[in-house]
Parts: sequence; C-alpha cells; structure tokens
Amino acid sequence: MTDGPKTDVPKTDVPKTDVIVREVGPRDGLQAEEPLPVEARVRLIGALVEAGLQEIEAVSFVSPKAVPSMAGAAEVMAALPAIEGVRFVALVPNMKGAELALAAGLRALTVTISASPAYNEKNVRMTVEESAVAIAAICGLGVPVDAVVSCAFGSPYEGDIAPGEVAALGHRLLEGGASSVTYADTTGMATPRRVGELVAETGPRIGLHLHETRGTGLVNAYAALELGVRRFDTSVGGLGGSPFAAGAAGNLATEDLVHLLDDLGVATGVDLDRLLDASALAASLVGHPVPSRVAAAGPRSRLAPA
Amino acid sequence: MTDGPKTDVPKTDVPKTDVIVREVGPRDGLQAEEPLPVEARVRLIGALVEAGLQEIEAVSFVSPKAVPSMAGAAEVMAALPAIEGVRFVALVPNMKGAELALAAGLRALTVTISASPAYNEKNVRMTVEESAVAIAAICGLGVPVDAVVSCAFGSPYEGDIAPGEVAALGHRLLEGGASSVTYADTTGMATPRRVGELVAETGPRIGLHLHETRGTGLVNAYAALELGVRRFDTSVGGLGGSPFAAGAAGNLATEDLVHLLDDLGVATGVDLDRLLDASALAASLVGHPVPSRVAAAGPRSRLAPA
Repeated sequence: MTDGPKTDVPKTDVPKTDVIVREVGPRDGLQAEEPLPVEARVRLIGALVEAGLQEIEAVSFVSPKAVPSMAGAAEVMAALPAIEGVRFVALVPNMKGAELALAAGLRALTVTISASPAYNEKNVRMTVEESAVAIAAICGLGVPVDAVVSCAFGSPYEGDIAPGEVAALGHRLLEGGASSVTYADTTGMATPRRVGELVAETGPRIGLHLHETRGTGLVNAYAALELGVRRFDTSVGGLGGSPFAAGAAGNLATEDLVHLLDDLGVATGVDLDRLLDASALAASLVGHPVPSRVAAAGPRSRLAPA
Repeated sequence: MTDGPKTDVPKTDVPKTDVIVREVGPRDGLQAEEPLPVEARVRLIGALVEAGLQEIEAVSFVSPKAVPSMAGAAEVMAALPAIEGVRFVALVPNMKGAELALAAGLRALTVTISASPAYNEKNVRMTVEESAVAIAAICGLGVPVDAVVSCAFGSPYEGDIAPGEVAALGHRLLEGGASSVTYADTTGMATPRRVGELVAETGPRIGLHLHETRGTGLVNAYAALELGVRRFDTSVGGLGGSPFAAGAAGNLATEDLVHLLDDLGVATGVDLDRLLDASALAASLVGHPVPSRVAAAGPRSRLAPA
C-alpha cells in the first residue's frame, strides 16, 4: 500500500460501510407526490448527502406527462455537485431515458422489470421478455446498471411467484449485462420466510427493496441481514409507493433501517440525527407527515426532558 | 391414552398452538380510548374469542376515576360466558383490585411493575421495592399471576437499563410467587439486539409485550421467536399505549403478528380473517382507523380483484 499521490484536493473521509443503503426517496419517494421545484429536490438530495448517504437514486428520465413530479431530471443533476464517495443514480424506463441520463452526466442507472407478467404489462406495457431485451440493450451502454425485479415476493395479480422463477429472471438479467440485481417487494407481500426462500435461490449478493405495506419491511430487512444480504433500498421518511398497486404505499424508511442497523453495530455511514433532519425537510417539502415511525417518535436514544 | 369419559357436553376443538398470543386490546388497547359501553366491550371480546384467541386480558380493576374507560369491569365479566379453552385475565393495580377481580369470577391476574424507578413512581406512585412487595401479596391469593415488567428495554427517564438488572427483577417476582413474567417494551426502545441481551439473562421462557412506537415491534417479536420465546402480548388493531410516556402509542398489532406467524407456519390458533373482522369492529367502536398495517392493506393472500 502507498499513501497515493499528494494533491491539493482536500481529503474526504468516506466512512466504511458494512451495508449499502441506497436512498431512493428523491425518485421513488417523490414520484407519488405533487411535483416539487427543482430547487427543493436539490435541497433534499443535499440534505441526504449531508446525512452520509453514499448512493442516491436522485432522478428518473421518464415522460414528464406520465410522471409530472419527475420532470426536470437534467436540471436537478446540473445543480448537484460531484461529491467524492457519493454515487447518484437515475431510473430509466428505456433506451431514450438512458441516453438522456448519460447526457445529463449520470454514470449509474437503474432499470425495472417485473417478476409478474401482469404487473409488467400494466407498468410498462411490455412483456417480461420485451423488458429483458430492452434492459440488455441499456446494459450495453457501458455504465453500471442495477436491474430491479419488482413483485419479487408475489403479485396482487398472480399471487405467489416461485422463488426459482424470480431468481432465474435475475440470473438472466446478470447474463444480459446488469451489474447487480435488486429484488423489490413492490406490494408488501414479502415475509422472512419468503426472503429466505429467494436468498436460497439467489445467494446473498443481491439488493432488496422492501415495503412497509403490511408492516413487514423492517423484519424482512433483518431476516435478510441474517442471511448475509448487504444492500437495501430505502426511502427517507418512508415516502413512496406504486400507483399501479392498491395499498402498496410505504417504502421501508431510511431512518427506520438506519436506527436498527446502528443499534446492531452495523455501519452504514449515515448519521441518524442528520438523516432525521433530512426527513423533516422531506415532510415540510411534501406538506404532510412522513410514515416513518422513528421520524415520529425520535430515536431510542432520545430521552424525556428532565 | 383413553378416549376420556363420554358426556353430552359438545366437544370443542381447542387448536394446539406453538405460540401463545395474549390479546390485550380490550384492556390495554381500550384504556387510552374514550369509554365504551359494557355491551360494546363484550362484543369486541366475543369477536376476539370467535377469532380463536385463547388468552384475553379483558378488563382491569382500577379506579374508574383514574381510568374511566375501564369502569364496569365486573359488568363486562358478568356478561362473558365461560368458554372452554379461553382464559380471561384482569389487570389489577393492587390488592383491592385483585379482590374485586376474584369476586367478579376472574381466575388469572396480571400485575405490573417497572424496571424504571422513575416510571414506576409516575405510574403507580410507589417505589419498585414497594411494588414488588405488593405483587408478592397478590400472588398469595392462589390464582396464576403474570407479572409484567414495564420499561424492560429502557426508559425515557433513565435511558438504557442493564438487562441483568431487569432479569433480576423478573427473578425476584417469580420467587415472590408470580407464575410467569412478561417483559414490556413500554416506550418502544427494544431492538433485536436488546431482546437478545435480555433473553440471554432470562432464558426464553418469558412473555414479551412489544410496542411499535419506533416500528420495531414485529422485528423484535421475530428476533425473540428465533431465540425460543413463545409468549407475546398483542393488541387487536395495534390499539393502545401508555398515557405516561410521550410517543409510546402503538402496541404490536395482533393481526400483524398472526400474519407473520401464519406465514412462518407457527400455529397460534387464530383465524386471521376472523381476527380482521374483530379489528374492523374495534375500529368502528373506537371511531377511528387502527394502526395495524395488515388491517389497512389486508393479508398478503388477498389479491387484486380480477
């Protein structure tokens, strides 16, 4: 090991992490809300960076007609400085979106595909096969692509989906060039048992995107952690959900997961107090309380006034 | 084995259970609500019996001035039929309450004491020592007494309380005649790590009374289950909380735990659909939605309309 080249660039301390918490609030969280000005979105992302989040799904390059709250992605990215140790990610629905994202300076993309044929059809009007082909093309662009498999723990249309089938889809996406796969519990149907069944098929080197629809987001994360999973998508305040599945609101809240991981001694690089500041900012920007219970009650370390 | 005596009494099928779910909604849940008529409380208890709950904290014999919503305990009990396989329990704050409970036909009692001196003082205006002496006297009455140790995972006044101290209090209560001890996370400070630390001191033959104050009720129950704990207090709909600790609202919801246990193949004797009927009844009686997420979203088995 060497000390590396001496430069005038100030050294930043990027904390080592045991678990990667990918913050999806500025994208997945805000997309279900009334549109916010670019400046407000940049401010929220800045607060999340301040809190120590190192991977942030910041924008999506989707049709502004289809998702008005995600308009102005290039403007959001233009306003964000490059920060050592922080990776911004854009969700892209197709090749056109991917090209716009690269033009806007993004160097990491997220794409989605569903393990549920009916959900895929409703969400993107493509068969799963068509989506897989489109994703492989995007993976050819030369930047890391995380493929998110939605309805990985069941679908409100087909019910349970066999873990072997879900894992096979993930495997196919990796073969098609995806750099990683994240399995999403889009409609809150995951349970510790079903997390275990999927991990038995995929191995632990996966991401999980969990929902609190049925109050199981945190317990599923804990069960996954026990199985060796080290990558989780969460949303500040628990904002977000899917407009295509009734009752699917409620991403696992970043602060609820960080609160748990802190207590377990698992490093995330995130400062919980600053994260709660970001959560309070998110609540004030969207104009309603956020679902996170830690945001409402405060961390366990916060005692009653003397 | 013999078939037992033939009688004309219809045989009831009391389901075998792996885990005892003690329903505390009619007592702990309703005490924080506006008073309900005796008839409504009896109806809710009946719905919980219908759902298959075999142990129900039905009433408390406390001062009607201090807790108006718990007035009329004897009337509630008088209206409840004896049901094979169902045990009704009353919370009693002192010897006078215990005697009233026995006079009303109760054959199982719950008492509380706090691991937090400050909380005990605020809650019952006694030192922990005075409470332990009073509990030992109640244990002399000859019916099973479950001693609930509140603030077992920390207190908003003192912060963390050493698991060894908490376990020592529990041990003392057993020596004083308590038939069982339940450790309560009164203010939602428990985490899987702290559950593990307490169980390491007490062993798994304990009950846990968990709260969702910080969204950790279900994950704590799961962690305890993994450690062999087989007794949980829950409240239908997640109703309840403590009036003496800010932000302490939210017992672990019975339906959220049963939903998880069902999926894990752990028998509770409870029928989730009937339990959701009882939860809907509870919501209509108290006049507001209940906090349970399974009550809001429905069980994972409930698919979208075709």
